[in-house]
Amino acid sequence: MFTTYMNEALAEATKALERGEIPVGAVVVGSSGNIIARAGNETRSRLDPSAHAEVLAIRQACEILETERLVGCDLYVTLEPCAMCAALIANARIRRVYFGASDPKSGGIQQGARIFEHKQTHHAPEIYSGIGEEKAAKLLTNFFANKRKQK
Amino acid sequence: MFTTYMNEALAEATKALERGEIPVGAVVVGSSGNIIARAGNETRSRLDPSAHAEVLAIRQACEILETERLVGCDLYVTLEPCAMCAALIANARIRRVYFGASDPKSGGIQQGARIFEHKQTHHAPEIYSGIGEEKAAKLLTNFFANKRKQK
Repeated sequence: MFTTYMNEALAEATKALERGEIPVGAVVVGSSGNIIARAGNETRSRLDPSAHAEVLAIRQACEILETERLVGCDLYVTLEPCAMCAALIANARIRRVYFGASDPKSGGIQQGARIFEHKQTHHAPEIYSGIGEEKAAKLLTNFFANKRKQK
Repeated sequence: MFTTYMNEALAEATKALERGEIPVGAVVVGSSGNIIARAGNETRSRLDPSAHAEVLAIRQACEILETERLVGCDLYVTLEPCAMCAALIANARIRRVYFGASDPKSGGIQQGARIFEHKQTHHAPEIYSGIGEEKAAKLLTNFFANKRKQK
């Protein structure tokens, strides 16, 4: 099951790559196992620094379910969420977060801000890391290697 | 000058209150002193947990200036930004943040996640706190006191 949902997130990351975006993808899954929303990173095409895959998928799921709080929903994302996305995950009351690759440079869960470890967080989801890590990391490594070549 | 811009942010907070939202307001000011964008909290009306005043004002400013990065722009906000908003402020490369009341419960700058104090932040703006603090705090205190009365 984990792999199936992460593959959907990886498919979103691949689509993001094809649009020239940093390849990160996310999927919101409801408590009955249905995929509610899916999104890839769109910061460049939208000219919106908040348009990370997680933010877009969570906003979409809230719109569909007509609620501010995704209680009982899980998030699958190819890369460790940054502090902005992690704090939104807490605000949205996501139950479980499954992520692929760790992000020592910008991650906000297992490093840096460690969003869920302070009393200012309104909620702390369960965290499962390393799912589909290799594929997620490969997409990102190739993207940044190509960027450097283009310079 | 600080007071003028903060008063604009306070006006947005008051409008948010009138809409039944948590009264927080924000204004983005360009390098020449012009107000580029203004917004109040809209999490309830939009059913969007990301729709904090700061997020809406930054997204609006990026759309108007057609850029992902608000280099040289300042943000005035009535309450200490939460971790989500602080991380977006870093992503958007906001130059200076002026905020009113501190937020021991949800703040992410001077407490908890302390977003700008880790090497994972992509940028650390200058921070000025306590501007228009009393008015900002009063709006919030009244809002939550009324909420409790209604229960």
